[in-house]
Amino acid sequence: MRATVLVRPKPGILDPQGEAVGSALGHLGFEVQDARVGKVIDLEVDALDAAAAKAAVEQMCEKLLANPLIESYEIEVTA
Amino acid sequence: MRATVLVRPKPGILDPQGEAVGSALGHLGFEVQDARVGKVIDLEVDALDAAAAKAAVEQMCEKLLANPLIESYEIEVTA
Repeated sequence: MRATVLVRPKPGILDPQGEAVGSALGHLGFEVQDARVGKVIDLEVDALDAAAAKAAVEQMCEKLLANPLIESYEIEVTA
Repeated sequence: MRATVLVRPKPGILDPQGEAVGSALGHLGFEVQDARVGKVIDLEVDALDAAAAKAAVEQMCEKLLANPLIESYEIEVTA
């Protein structure tokens, strides 16, 4: 099953990449109030059903894909 | 308006970060066939409506956020 994980810096956590993007967009003439940059991870997971796939990907997030102290994650599983 | 942009390496383009993630997940005992890593960018854009916001973010993608040669992007605008 295909899973998409969005990993984002939690609110209040410093995001230098986002600040750089926001400032660069400003210099290019775009009106942007706030920019935050995170990761999107697409995975093809071996699992019997969507619930099992989601549980496995949650484990992957806790162990490797995200740092739960400073990042939040969101998982979407598609067939 | 809030916009979320997903920037992903195009199919066929080498993705060393994705390969590293896939291999690390394998070592941790997870069954993962394929892993690709891209960026998620959350923006707060000044625009009159969703169509204008999307058009502006498309410009941002072409000029800064994505490299259209090797990356594809997907834009979602919410109120």
